[in-house]
Amino acid sequence: MTVYVDNAATTKLSDKALDSMLPLFKDIYGNPSSLHTVGQTAKEYLEEARETVANCIGALPREIYFTSGGSEADNQAIRTAAFIGAKKGKKHIVSSKFEHHAVLHTLNALEKEGYTVTLVDVNSDGVIKADDVKNAITDETCLVTIMTANNEIGTIQPIAEIGEICREKGVFFHTDAVQAVGHIHVNVKDMNVDMLSASAHKFHGPKGVGFLYVKSGIPVKNLIEGGAQERGKRAGTENMPAIIGMATALKDAVDNLDENAKKVSAMRDRLMQGLKDIDRSFINGNLEKRLPGTVNMCFEGIEGESLLLLLDMKGICASSGSACTSGSLDPSHVLLSIGVPVEVAHGSLRLSISEYNTMEEMEHIIKSVPEVVTYLRSISPVWERIIKEEN
Amino acid sequence: MTVYVDNAATTKLSDKALDSMLPLFKDIYGNPSSLHTVGQTAKEYLEEARETVANCIGALPREIYFTSGGSEADNQAIRTAAFIGAKKGKKHIVSSKFEHHAVLHTLNALEKEGYTVTLVDVNSDGVIKADDVKNAITDETCLVTIMTANNEIGTIQPIAEIGEICREKGVFFHTDAVQAVGHIHVNVKDMNVDMLSASAHKFHGPKGVGFLYVKSGIPVKNLIEGGAQERGKRAGTENMPAIIGMATALKDAVDNLDENAKKVSAMRDRLMQGLKDIDRSFINGNLEKRLPGTVNMCFEGIEGESLLLLLDMKGICASSGSACTSGSLDPSHVLLSIGVPVEVAHGSLRLSISEYNTMEEMEHIIKSVPEVVTYLRSISPVWERIIKEEN
Repeated sequence: MTVYVDNAATTKLSDKALDSMLPLFKDIYGNPSSLHTVGQTAKEYLEEARETVANCIGALPREIYFTSGGSEADNQAIRTAAFIGAKKGKKHIVSSKFEHHAVLHTLNALEKEGYTVTLVDVNSDGVIKADDVKNAITDETCLVTIMTANNEIGTIQPIAEIGEICREKGVFFHTDAVQAVGHIHVNVKDMNVDMLSASAHKFHGPKGVGFLYVKSGIPVKNLIEGGAQERGKRAGTENMPAIIGMATALKDAVDNLDENAKKVSAMRDRLMQGLKDIDRSFINGNLEKRLPGTVNMCFEGIEGESLLLLLDMKGICASSGSACTSGSLDPSHVLLSIGVPVEVAHGSLRLSISEYNTMEEMEHIIKSVPEVVTYLRSISPVWERIIKEEN
Repeated sequence: MTVYVDNAATTKLSDKALDSMLPLFKDIYGNPSSLHTVGQTAKEYLEEARETVANCIGALPREIYFTSGGSEADNQAIRTAAFIGAKKGKKHIVSSKFEHHAVLHTLNALEKEGYTVTLVDVNSDGVIKADDVKNAITDETCLVTIMTANNEIGTIQPIAEIGEICREKGVFFHTDAVQAVGHIHVNVKDMNVDMLSASAHKFHGPKGVGFLYVKSGIPVKNLIEGGAQERGKRAGTENMPAIIGMATALKDAVDNLDENAKKVSAMRDRLMQGLKDIDRSFINGNLEKRLPGTVNMCFEGIEGESLLLLLDMKGICASSGSACTSGSLDPSHVLLSIGVPVEVAHGSLRLSISEYNTMEEMEHIIKSVPEVVTYLRSISPVWERIIKEEN
């Protein structure tokens, strides 16, 4: 039995998405920039996919730029606002302490180029206060970038409210919606965002493709220079099969969003209910304002990596946090940002569920996690110390 | 009958490549950064693909960085050298007038950031003189970037010789080998290159993936910041199916290179022989130093776009030059760089052949092109004027 509960890292490609991609691999293989029939047929598919994606988030087709994924979209959004800001002498950016590294590391790079960055604190429940963002904005601010939902703990942020503040202040607002798109309702108008990033492989679409929404009228800055693809803003022959697969997967996710969310959150709730009584453990993040599929817990006295490896031996594929930082010995910056002590943050477990999971699998997890935690604690000097201190 | 002779724009994915990708779509869907079995299995495939790609160009696996394609690789290579150069106060770059736009537009962007660029002339036969590159290098030069083979006319450049000059002068040397890899022998050591870009969909691999070779010891500059993928130099979840497909297609291309080149160049030679007698037409570029599959011709007195559309009606899918600039009314910068007059450059036709083509298809082209050229000239005021001036 393999129980894959690492859907925040990547999801299995849906059969429907794959089926929609195959003709683009086999017959409709043209370059959409070519004038001949083979190329123009591909171009029709490309623009149809753009319309599908746009419709799914309440945008116009011309506001959608296809990218190689969420990281590229985040980089390009931030670089776009930074470039426009610099021309007006505005070189201050507001973000939060628990953004994805695609955002934080881009901000680090900009700091080296002379920008200043304010990272607002995150509340202990994993939700940012819109007022904190408001207070961080200065006359020099060119961009606010706050994620829609956190990738490690799944908490959903007050995006519409922050967006309204940015509109009032005349500051660009970008949101990394990589974990949200396809999982919760995402509408760029309702959210008051100027730019939004998404990644297909987080909603059962293919890897290697994502999109950036940019509100009409904002001049996009190229990250990749070259040919005139994507209205001249993203060079490189379009990744046709992946773009079509993304559109198929997104439409499918949006069409079935409420039904999937209901199914997935029922499994999540069962998991939380079944695991919450483990001694000296706790669930990270607000219990209400969260993605349907994400549970993040900490278990005192154990190492997350050992936990993962032993769970893996029981067929459970989970994560200690972000896959993008796996292999790193540093504790999660997300957990530290919400005030989890360093030592405890090392004992984290992220279970991220999709509609492909079953309640039976949840029961297997509920049975296995306490066994593994108990075993690891039995050989943990840290746990021994904790127990001694308690008595 | 569809005769696809636009293989320099993009190629049909090989069945072998697609077959190698399918398991990565269906079962081995993990994120290689994940510690569990599903992730680690993907990681094994990733590193095996890296080794395959490295072996195909005489590099070490750790010298291969997977990207979303050739354009991204070109951008990252140039930005890497520019960044290192700036730290040493060296902000001059040497390139040529007929590079791909992924190179030229990146250089344009760098000029706006304070770099200076020298574009060396191209000889009328479409081959750059190594001495011209040598003479353009100054004490301020941080990079020479010259393509291995031109994408429009197919001429092959004296890369090893230019590389040797760069080594002597202590200047980084990058080559855009997008049209060369998989078609002619490419070995980074023999070519004396520090960086090399390639794109899978030019050798019957999938779209949306390419790679950048960077010689060991050169600190790569991120174009996309974020997670620690690709040794921390290219963020974003790896496009696993595409990377595997690229490795399969590249190995296949390299294993069968001589055989394919023989087959393809026989078709190319038949084409050139069959079309060369059309009145007031000529073949662009050196007849010897060229890719096996590329023929580029100009026909006086006609518009390339009309030529393409009428050929398309006869089932022939060709190009007037680069697909990346199709739709543009400007004549090809490549043809202008080799001294083709503006008016004549408008009447260009690129036929790019792959091993999937047949000699029968060549005969269809040889029959069709003169018919279309004759018809277009019969309605062309420009042609009328040319004939009048002649008499």
